[in-house]
Amino acid sequence: MHHVDKAVRKQAIEHNIEVIKYGVQLGSKALSVWLSDGSNFPGQLNFRTAFQNTLESLQEIYTALPDDWKVWVEYKPYEPNFYSTTIGDWGQSYLLASKLGAKASTLVDLGHHLQGTNIEQIVSLLLMEGKLAGFHFNDSKYGDDDLTVGSINPYQLFLIFNELVEGMDARGMNHATAIGWMIDASHNVKDPIEDLLQSVQAIKIAYAQALLVDKTALQAAQSNNDVAQAQEILQQAYRTDVRPLIAQASLANGGALNPVEAYRKLKVRDNLIKERGLKTVATGL
Amino acid sequence: MHHVDKAVRKQAIEHNIEVIKYGVQLGSKALSVWLSDGSNFPGQLNFRTAFQNTLESLQEIYTALPDDWKVWVEYKPYEPNFYSTTIGDWGQSYLLASKLGAKASTLVDLGHHLQGTNIEQIVSLLLMEGKLAGFHFNDSKYGDDDLTVGSINPYQLFLIFNELVEGMDARGMNHATAIGWMIDASHNVKDPIEDLLQSVQAIKIAYAQALLVDKTALQAAQSNNDVAQAQEILQQAYRTDVRPLIAQASLANGGALNPVEAYRKLKVRDNLIKERGLKTVATGL
Amino acid sequence: MHHVDKAVRKQAIEHNIEVIKYGVQLGSKALSVWLSDGSNFPGQLNFRTAFQNTLESLQEIYTALPDDWKVWVEYKPYEPNFYSTTIGDWGQSYLLASKLGAKASTLVDLGHHLQGTNIEQIVSLLLMEGKLAGFHFNDSKYGDDDLTVGSINPYQLFLIFNELVEGMDARGMNHATAIGWMIDASHNVKDPIEDLLQSVQAIKIAYAQALLVDKTALQAAQSNNDVAQAQEILQQAYRTDVRPLIAQASLANGGALNPVEAYRKLKVRDNLIKERGLKTVATGL
Amino acid sequence: MHHVDKAVRKQAIEHNIEVIKYGVQLGSKALSVWLSDGSNFPGQLNFRTAFQNTLESLQEIYTALPDDWKVWVEYKPYEPNFYSTTIGDWGQSYLLASKLGAKASTLVDLGHHLQGTNIEQIVSLLLMEGKLAGFHFNDSKYGDDDLTVGSINPYQLFLIFNELVEGMDARGMNHATAIGWMIDASHNVKDPIEDLLQSVQAIKIAYAQALLVDKTALQAAQSNNDVAQAQEILQQAYRTDVRPLIAQASLANGGALNPVEAYRKLKVRDNLIKERGLKTVATGL
Repeated sequence: MHHVDKAVRKQAIEHNIEVIKYGVQLGSKALSVWLSDGSNFPGQLNFRTAFQNTLESLQEIYTALPDDWKVWVEYKPYEPNFYSTTIGDWGQSYLLASKLGAKASTLVDLGHHLQGTNIEQIVSLLLMEGKLAGFHFNDSKYGDDDLTVGSINPYQLFLIFNELVEGMDARGMNHATAIGWMIDASHNVKDPIEDLLQSVQAIKIAYAQALLVDKTALQAAQSNNDVAQAQEILQQAYRTDVRPLIAQASLANGGALNPVEAYRKLKVRDNLIKERGLKTVATGL
Repeated sequence: MHHVDKAVRKQAIEHNIEVIKYGVQLGSKALSVWLSDGSNFPGQLNFRTAFQNTLESLQEIYTALPDDWKVWVEYKPYEPNFYSTTIGDWGQSYLLASKLGAKASTLVDLGHHLQGTNIEQIVSLLLMEGKLAGFHFNDSKYGDDDLTVGSINPYQLFLIFNELVEGMDARGMNHATAIGWMIDASHNVKDPIEDLLQSVQAIKIAYAQALLVDKTALQAAQSNNDVAQAQEILQQAYRTDVRPLIAQASLANGGALNPVEAYRKLKVRDNLIKERGLKTVATGL
Repeated sequence: MHHVDKAVRKQAIEHNIEVIKYGVQLGSKALSVWLSDGSNFPGQLNFRTAFQNTLESLQEIYTALPDDWKVWVEYKPYEPNFYSTTIGDWGQSYLLASKLGAKASTLVDLGHHLQGTNIEQIVSLLLMEGKLAGFHFNDSKYGDDDLTVGSINPYQLFLIFNELVEGMDARGMNHATAIGWMIDASHNVKDPIEDLLQSVQAIKIAYAQALLVDKTALQAAQSNNDVAQAQEILQQAYRTDVRPLIAQASLANGGALNPVEAYRKLKVRDNLIKERGLKTVATGL
Repeated sequence: MHHVDKAVRKQAIEHNIEVIKYGVQLGSKALSVWLSDGSNFPGQLNFRTAFQNTLESLQEIYTALPDDWKVWVEYKPYEPNFYSTTIGDWGQSYLLASKLGAKASTLVDLGHHLQGTNIEQIVSLLLMEGKLAGFHFNDSKYGDDDLTVGSINPYQLFLIFNELVEGMDARGMNHATAIGWMIDASHNVKDPIEDLLQSVQAIKIAYAQALLVDKTALQAAQSNNDVAQAQEILQQAYRTDVRPLIAQASLANGGALNPVEAYRKLKVRDNLIKERGLKTVATGL
């Protein structure tokens, strides 16, 4: 998208427009764009030209978007490029999205941040600006580790959901449909379906805990600069064991009380392998 | 500036407006704003409210700016607050500056970034948007260490100057006056004047090396995706020992060939202490 | 301790020996040593000489230790020095402690690590080597932030306690007395006693949850490389709301069910201020 | 090496012993061990068991080492595992190497550190302990980026060589043969031979500059705590343009004045492709 050669950029643009066409046939309503464009060495590219080329490419794609579609612009600080990424942080994604127009917004992948980034603050500000596209959920200790959601820092996940619930409610947004919810975790030391079940469970827990936060009391504590009390209120929600609640809700919806346990007892994996063969399953996931 | 209590914010606003008045008397043309506002614990504040309060406060100050003044909005990820800073990164500063108007822009302190941030890319993009206010120069290995400019990573300093020269030339900006040049380094293990002399020397070296970059050849290498050649071109400039050139220029301007050496030989410090007394000097620096 | 001048080192050594004498009178059994020694600029010191000087100084102090005393060697990567710290990481502390002898061991302050450090692994290995002195508990998002224990990443705290319980049990160590338990958190945006109460509560929660880990099942999962199951087992313990249990234990020991709430209802702070005066209390904490 | 199953560990051990046999036939004198062993999720393994299993495996390999061989133990904080690495830092490698014996030492890959690590200090201390095996040279901005040596932070490279020269001279070590010198950089956006030529050039420059450091003056500045002067001395050497010297030395040894330029002018790559075919060359590198 940022390539110095216009012909190469054209290829990338046309590929995206083609993807939109397939998406329309599939009933999709959004194009999610993550660009690995960047550089490995100082001098390899001109940052300004790379940004402008990317903007132009995205503008052409934007023009081809159906009326009821969105385009989501993801950012990432490094990898596969190790000196610069052309859409490297939320500010660069926001700059592009605001130049593109109302259909464009910023997608947050939890693993796409430098160490120490306050992700929940970014989430809050993007919601404030009407520019939060949605999430790629996962967890990480170092970089884009794509570990199971909630496996490394579940409190951070809760804090993000706390901002989501508060910020969406403030704008009257529908929790389920207003933004895109995606899991982007994958690891080869776990059965991928179990990984997914654990990720979904972690998201349900964080969401339920965020709904438990006493917002009136929190606002009062914030107004009084009662910092210790604000922490008590958040941790009161976070420390609550919401698993029985989630299990009951799952049961009421025809699901399992304990998804990983049920998956194992019902030998879902074995049955799928019998149906599809060992290699097909492996490739399919 | 982000305080929940409007009366407290009013105090801060009035203090800034008072500062502008003194500035006018002193012939200054810019107000530089760094806010330590932030939070130490999750829940302590509402990020959105904190941002909006800050914006409102800055808008009132902006209204009070004389016609020919600028306001520079600095950002910093952490310290003195250790959970969030209300103007935490360039994106948050840019968002404020773009909402404020043409007189507002973003000030870059080299030490105010998370580890791994590509500062030169931020410099390039802010220049592109006409929103680079200027710099607080220093160097650091960890955080806001405020070490002597060029003492830890002189190549990064060169790369920043490379973006500055290229980006300012592209917009026809005057190198000396278009942005604010400040040194914000301070360390108590060095004589502060020697520290300053070393910082100025490092800046001169990086600037001279950036001027030496063969821009035509670099652009050609970039157009051909000749990454090895692009690195050769940058390092050809960086490896050049420009100290004789700078010494000659200093001499031509009535300065010393080797500032630190001259400062020591002329016993400037001793003479200042004789003039002002030991304690006064210490306080004054 | 690492000073180039032997006379200066002697002063520091004698100060420590004096402290031991006071400690003996107070019934203490350990000397905790944290050295801020380091450098701000490349070249400022010779790393090897600094290490050897520190070792020699500590050896003199070690010789002066009473038979039943320990010396705890703390490490920290940066601050107040911003280029190097002479005892910068656990490896450097361990190297010193192993050269000193059996009375010397390594003290872990949770905030004294580079971003991304796996602290629980360090704890496990130090226990394995019989060289874990104890802890300075706190929490942090960036560096040595000294925030309330459990306020930023309570899962990490649990994982540390999980290693502690497992590792101490493996060596038959007494949980309460075998190592030093200290809280080193302090923040001026909270009432310091409330901060302490919240820290103690977070430690009790993490410890209780670590005791709940089904060690037999965990070992079986580890032996089978059943990674998903191992995570289920740890999170089963961590997700349990142990607060009622802790409240009951507190009540049984004559304590409050909810310490922060009780502290507020009983107006402990107001009463202390009445007794001691406003300024004394402030200074005393 | 750390596997819970002894049979699996046996396979790894035997593989290493086989490698030693091939090495003997090739005239090699060292076995370099980098283990990717680690874990992706808390609970996946027991840190102590993993360490002990690794130690046992290495002990068996150590026993199989010919008398005049060395074993080099590399460390790395993360990747391909994203929660823990069993030999994660220099301290863990040192602990293993000291338990193994005199033939074992620690290999430093410049990219295998957490952000902010003072690598030159580690180099100095390992030399002091007689436990520095050698280097994998490369450069990085984020993690194990394997970029061309000297392409991101050439001053850090100089500082490492400064410790090497000083520390090896202090022990009377032969610069060329006492430790292992390896380049471990690789990037697919450059011709790999050009990448290598640039890396070698960067190493020669850093080494030549380190030899230029006025050690007597530096020691004097350190003894006087003259921090500004110490910086002047180091930068005096670093700012010197040693490229003409290196070119002359290269010419005297039958090499090219400018390696990358010569490689291009002589069309070495084209000629190699003609000889070997396009695909073979690509695979071979």
